[in-house]
Order: sequence, then C-alpha cells, then structure tokens
Amino acid sequence: MPLSDYLDANRERHLSELFELLRIPSVSTDPGRAADVAAAAEFVADALRSAGLGADVHATDGHPIVVGRSPAVEGAPTVLVYGHYDVQPAEPLELWDTPPFEPRIVDGDIRARGASDDKGQVYAHVKGAEALLQLDGALPVNLVFVIEGEEEIGSPHLRPFLEAHADELAADVVVISDGAMLAPDTPTLTYGLKGLAYLEVRVRSAGRDLHSGAYGGGVPNPIQALAGMIAALKDDDGRVTVPGFYDDVAELGDEERRRMADAPFDEAAFRADAGVTATPGERGYSLIERLWARPTLDCNGIWGGFQGDGAKTVIPAEAGAKISCRLVPGQEPEDISRKVAHALEALAPEGCEVEVVHLHGGRPASTPIDAASVRAAAEALRASFGREPVFARTGGTIPVVADFQELLGSEVVLVGFGLEDDRAHAPNEKFSVENYLRGIATSAELLRALGRAPLGGPAGASGGGDGAG
Amino acid sequence: MPLSDYLDANRERHLSELFELLRIPSVSTDPGRAADVAAAAEFVADALRSAGLGADVHATDGHPIVVGRSPAVEGAPTVLVYGHYDVQPAEPLELWDTPPFEPRIVDGDIRARGASDDKGQVYAHVKGAEALLQLDGALPVNLVFVIEGEEEIGSPHLRPFLEAHADELAADVVVISDGAMLAPDTPTLTYGLKGLAYLEVRVRSAGRDLHSGAYGGGVPNPIQALAGMIAALKDDDGRVTVPGFYDDVAELGDEERRRMADAPFDEAAFRADAGVTATPGERGYSLIERLWARPTLDCNGIWGGFQGDGAKTVIPAEAGAKISCRLVPGQEPEDISRKVAHALEALAPEGCEVEVVHLHGGRPASTPIDAASVRAAAEALRASFGREPVFARTGGTIPVVADFQELLGSEVVLVGFGLEDDRAHAPNEKFSVENYLRGIATSAELLRALGRAPLGGPAGASGGGDGAG
Repeated sequence: MPLSDYLDANRERHLSELFELLRIPSVSTDPGRAADVAAAAEFVADALRSAGLGADVHATDGHPIVVGRSPAVEGAPTVLVYGHYDVQPAEPLELWDTPPFEPRIVDGDIRARGASDDKGQVYAHVKGAEALLQLDGALPVNLVFVIEGEEEIGSPHLRPFLEAHADELAADVVVISDGAMLAPDTPTLTYGLKGLAYLEVRVRSAGRDLHSGAYGGGVPNPIQALAGMIAALKDDDGRVTVPGFYDDVAELGDEERRRMADAPFDEAAFRADAGVTATPGERGYSLIERLWARPTLDCNGIWGGFQGDGAKTVIPAEAGAKISCRLVPGQEPEDISRKVAHALEALAPEGCEVEVVHLHGGRPASTPIDAASVRAAAEALRASFGREPVFARTGGTIPVVADFQELLGSEVVLVGFGLEDDRAHAPNEKFSVENYLRGIATSAELLRALGRAPLGGPAGASGGGDGAG
Repeated sequence: MPLSDYLDANRERHLSELFELLRIPSVSTDPGRAADVAAAAEFVADALRSAGLGADVHATDGHPIVVGRSPAVEGAPTVLVYGHYDVQPAEPLELWDTPPFEPRIVDGDIRARGASDDKGQVYAHVKGAEALLQLDGALPVNLVFVIEGEEEIGSPHLRPFLEAHADELAADVVVISDGAMLAPDTPTLTYGLKGLAYLEVRVRSAGRDLHSGAYGGGVPNPIQALAGMIAALKDDDGRVTVPGFYDDVAELGDEERRRMADAPFDEAAFRADAGVTATPGERGYSLIERLWARPTLDCNGIWGGFQGDGAKTVIPAEAGAKISCRLVPGQEPEDISRKVAHALEALAPEGCEVEVVHLHGGRPASTPIDAASVRAAAEALRASFGREPVFARTGGTIPVVADFQELLGSEVVLVGFGLEDDRAHAPNEKFSVENYLRGIATSAELLRALGRAPLGGPAGASGGGDGAG
C-alpha cells in the first residue's frame, strides 16, 4: 500500500491517539502535576510499543526520560528522534477559548496545550515509524527515540542521561521536530543554530551614592562609564569591536548565501511583526544573514541610579548591564565570554572598577548543508510537501542540540512541523491537522531517505543502501 | 558692654531657649505633626517679639510662614534673613543615641533633630538681632525675617508668598544660614550656587520586547542606542558636547580662581569621603573649580530590559535615563534643557524614537565677590572667628535663593554655621555649642557690617553710614 493511502486510512486513529496524549496535563514545572507527567511518559512508552518498538521509561531525579528503540537493522545507520512530552502551564486559563486539556478541532486546528509544542510533533514521528513498520515490516534504519519530560524547565537531567548512555545512544543523525516552518506551506529544514554567551557587567566608582550637586564634575559617573563601554562594543559598521570576536567565525559559503537570498523571507513582514522602522546591523551582510548566521552582541538589560518618577539628584555608586552574544559555528561561549570581559575591562575609564560575571553559555550547532542527513531531510520534505524546502538557520539557541553533537557525535537536523503563530507557551495553542498529518508523512519519508543516505561512514553508507528497500 | 561680654552673660539662656524650640517635633512632612509645626511657628514668632521685633504668623495652604520685622530705620538698608523652623522626620528612631526631640549636650554638641538644620542656625540670627537691640537700642539696618515651615518638603508655598509680598519684602541683601562651613573652624561665605536642569529621556525602537535569538542582529537595540547617546554627550576632554551648552557660561575671574586655589580644600579627604579613586572632569579646570563653578552633566539613572538575577534573552522595546545638568550663572534651565533635548534627538540612531520630558529646573544664583554684601559678610566672619573666611561656591541648587534674587531683587549670601558631619536628615543630628554661639556673634557682627556697607544704591549707601553707629 502506498504511504499516502495508509495515512488516509488511519487519519482518524492518528488524531484520536494524539488527543489522548493531549488530555494528560503533563505540566513539568508544577509539582502537583508530577503524576500526570509520569502518566504521559507511560503513555508515550506504550505508544512506542504498540507502534512496534521497544520502550523503556528511565527514572531521573526529575521527570522520566522515555527511550524507544526499533528492532535492530544490522549495518543500517542509526537515527535518533528527540522530543518532549511535557508542556508549559496553561495559565492564564481565562484566556483560552476551549479548555487547554480537552483537545478539539477548531477551524482545522488541533486546539490544546502541547498540540504543537511538542506532543503533536513528536507523536507524528511515532506514527511515522509505525507506518513504515506496518507497510514494510521493518525500518530502513536503526531508530531510537529519546523523549524527555523536562524540556520546558530547561532539561536539567537530559545531558547527564546522554553522558551516562552515550554509547548506546550514539547516532548518525538526530532529528528534532520542536519548532516552526518559516511560513505556512513552506517546508523548512533548520541546519544551524546560534550559541550564546551571556554575562553581567557591573561598574563601581564610589563608596556610596553621591549627591550630584555636591560631587558632580568631580567624580566618575558609573552610568556614563558603562554607557561609554557599551557604546564602544560596536563600531559604526555595526561590527563588534571586541578583540578576536570574529577570529573563529565560520564564514558563510556561496551556496548558503544564495539559499538565504532565495528564502521566502518577507522583510516588510519582519518589520511589522517586530514593530521596528529600521533593521540595522553588521555592514556587508543581508538582514537574513545577520539574523541566521552572523554573531551578534546585544545589551539585554541595564540599570543604575534613580529609576522612579520625578527627579533625584544622585550619582550612583554602581551601574550594571546584561550583555549577550549569539555565536555562530566556530565560536565557543567560554572564549567569547572571556574576550568580551577583557574588552569591557579595557574600556573602563579611570576610577571605575569593572566586575564581570559569566551567567550562561550555549554552544552553536550546525550541520553542513551538503551533509547526507540534510540532503535526506530535504528529500523527505520535498516528497511530503511537494515543494522545495527552505534551508534555514536560526538565531536561537537550543543547548540540547549542541549536546547531541558533542556527546553522541551526531549530525542534527531540525524539521519543524509547526507554524510561528501556533501560540506555543500561550493561550489557545494550536497545531494544524494538516501539518500533523504531513508530519507523519514527512517522518516516514525521512526514515526512508535516511535509510538510503550515505550516513555514518562505511557502516552507515552500506546500511543505508540495504535499508532502502 | 562689648558684644562678647553680652554673649558670655547670656550663654545659658541662649542655649535653653533653643532647646525649647528643639523640643517641638515640627516634622513638616507628617500630617500628624501639623499642630507641632504650628506650635513651632508660634514659638518663633514669640521669640522674635521678645527679641524686640514685630512678628506675624502668615497662614498658607500648608504650614505657616513667620515674618519678623525690626523697628524701621529710615534710610538704612534692608536685610532679610531666611530660614526654616520645620525639620526632617527623626526615623529610624532606633539609630538615635538620645531621643531626637529631647535635646541635650553630648561632647560639646547640641544633639537633637533640627539642631543644625535649621532651628539652631536661624535661632542664632534671632539672638544676634536681640543682642544688638539690647546693646545698642536699635539695629543698624531694617531687618526682616522670613522663617518658613515647609523647607523640608520643597517650600511649595514660599514662592507664591514672596510673589504676593514682593514689595514689602524687598531687601538689599538676603542672608541664609542653612548649611555648613567648608571645614571646622573655617568661616565660610557662599556666594554662588549652581542651577539645575533635569530631564528624562526615553528611547523606543520596537513594538514589543523581542527575543534576542530570533531578532538579534536585525533590530535596533534601545539600550545600546541610549548608551551611545549618553556617551556622546561628553568628549574626551570631559566637556559637554551639547551644542551651545557653554555659550552663556560666566567664566571665572582671576580673583575667584585665586581664592579657589587658596581655599582649604583637601582633595584626599574629598576622595576618601566619596570613596573614589579618581576625580575626572572638564580639562583645564581644577577639581574645586569644577565642583563649584563649572557646569556639569550627569546621568542620574538608567533602565531598560532585564534587571533581575540570571539571564533573560530579551531586546527590550524601550530604555530610559534621567539626565541632569548643574548650571552656572549665565545659563538658564529652560535653555539648557532644550539644548540637551535637541542634542539627544540628533544623536538618536536610525529606528529609534526619542522622547524627552523636562522634569525640574532651578536657576543658578550668585553674588559678585566684590559686592558690598559679600564684603560685609566677610568682615563679620573675620570678626567673630578671628580668621579670614573662605569664599565658596557650591554645586548644589537652592531654588529659593534664585527666587529671592528674582522676586526681591536681592543679593544673597550664605553663611553656614554647621559642619558637614552634622548629620542633617540623619540620626543623631548635632550642632556644636561653639558654632551656635559663634553664629549669634556672627549674626550681630553681620548686621553691624551691613549697616556700614554701601548697600542698595544711594538710599542703602547713606543708610548704611547712618546705621553703623
């Protein structure tokens, strides 16, 4: 039976099963929902088993991690699908038009908390694998699912779990569906994410707050010092002036730039969405290149002195700011944090003491656009959408992606089935029925394409040939 | 009887009377103390009357203003002494070593709320006038007291009162004792105060807060825009770059610069007090010249984006700052506010909208150091302290001083009897017994010197000669 016939025949079952999962209020941040989170883990494990895979529910110090595993296919490449079964809180409940854990179809959308983020997307992969097992009796790859229950609270136990099970989870490619397409009906394959280096800087200049009348003109002003330091971090060309900032940046290749230029990116819509009248940035790069593939530096917060209504004539003793850089492949968070800290210290004017605290880091991640996994994903999207996919990068940072790359040695491709307006984390979250069903088709096509792809060196390459049948 | 003998003979009475005034908790900001504030006004009026002056308690929409007036001396100059009988709250009470409204002498200091600010200082003038009336039977000047009860809450009813009574309050010179000497045993005559122009600036760049991953590198950052604008307000020489900022500045004369260079100003003590390691400022001017007599620009507050613990990856839609300038004679608050606002608007980068709100202004005030009133005050301080006084200016702003200049056409001299460490507004406020008594002597000597001075044009000049006897 062709895949499309199978999917048509099972459409109602695919929907009703997902609805069962959506009914479980697996809010990971709410201690009162721990039993629901555990029930969702068991539901997912049962779903994997009934799809024809083995499944284990691994306890952690937090919520469990479900690992599914297809029957071994000797010599075939290994594909790991990552997703999560936990959801954001539904509050404020009064803003929902329908109860968040009573899924229903409204205007062609599945309306429920977790519909798009991420239950609907990860369940599409479970059903995709099931479809191939039903149709072909076997998968063309060794398929592993890692479906966790703590994504919405920062995945505190995932990395330790990956570290402890690195050998058995080693995969040639990791597939993640936990995001959105660039636009409706625009199959999107995300192959690069930025990293993050986030720090806090404090400038101190005096032993106490000083009266601006009695001391003005005679003491350093830490706000003005900080303002000067921040202003000096970029030049008139919008480039970051931190020494060595660009040293390790992987420059964009010609094909990437061409693809970005061709991407259906609507600059007017971008401006309207953000409510901005200008899109300044690093000279020499288009807006989409800057957003997707150039390192950036932004001040995320600043404070100092008097912030209330009216006038207070104070020269504060201290001022501070939060500064973060988005990093591209080649850059390391620790290295950039150190360079920014050194630059800030060097910029401090006389009489100002600078303290930098490194708050947070995440490594960038990317898979080359000509990698076998990326080509296979493109092939799958082409098959299920009937359109050429967009090769995208994103300015966002997903630390787990870099973890998979680092710990499991995998290529990572992100294939989002959602839409930007799916209201993830917000009331009335939705996931279109059509995208859910296309997600199942894409998942099945992707496994077939990956089975044919020259993945994972000799073993993968040969296995890929075998498994394509 | 020589003045000094009279003062010695009346020492205990001068102290005990002041203690009575200090026992009245005339906290002007506390509605529950309104009756005490009124009682303090009546006490001051009675004190003026028993000193030999006429006195009226003028009701206002707030606390009353006491006006005292000496018997008229035809042809003599008119001197107005301004002070206030209200006090700051005493809280936190637990930090007082003695009850704030039970004055006592501790280590040679009168310890009580209001001892230095300003009951002790204004009462010294009442006792100084009384001394001359007792000794000479008349004053050498026409003396007017204006003693208000709302100084600690911003004097909301004083200016309207001065406007309504400008004719009858017109004076050749206004004397204010509501401050401190430059150092202990250093008679200080303050002849200039800075003005103030205080504004708030807001920079808006987007319709909402944006995710720094999704939008970084593609949208204006209002914090960085604001930082750049603030940084650009001063050049590498510490000069304010606002076009026209220095246009109307009255430059320092040679004698003023010489006196400032000779002033007993301890830069090391200044650094230690402020807790600073550097004293940057406008090139070409000494620290004391900058503090006293050069216009300044300080950022008093700044805010924007995320200020909490940890990391939030936001590009805020808006950032803001408070900016104030201290002005010197020649500069007008409205003019400088407008110039700073224009400069900020011109500095705004593309995509950033700037809004400036003018919050507060105060005019600078000064009396020439060779004015008759200043020379007379110097003579009085020389007589009572036995030392050459310091001619000082201050970076602070006292709007009422400019009001007196503007509304009454008076020269203003400030003769502070307090010390910098008198803990005005703080627990354990104090005023040294010695300075209180020297204040009485100085007040009497000042009236004599002013009576001899060529004040107020022909009438004042001749009256001065007559009244000196």
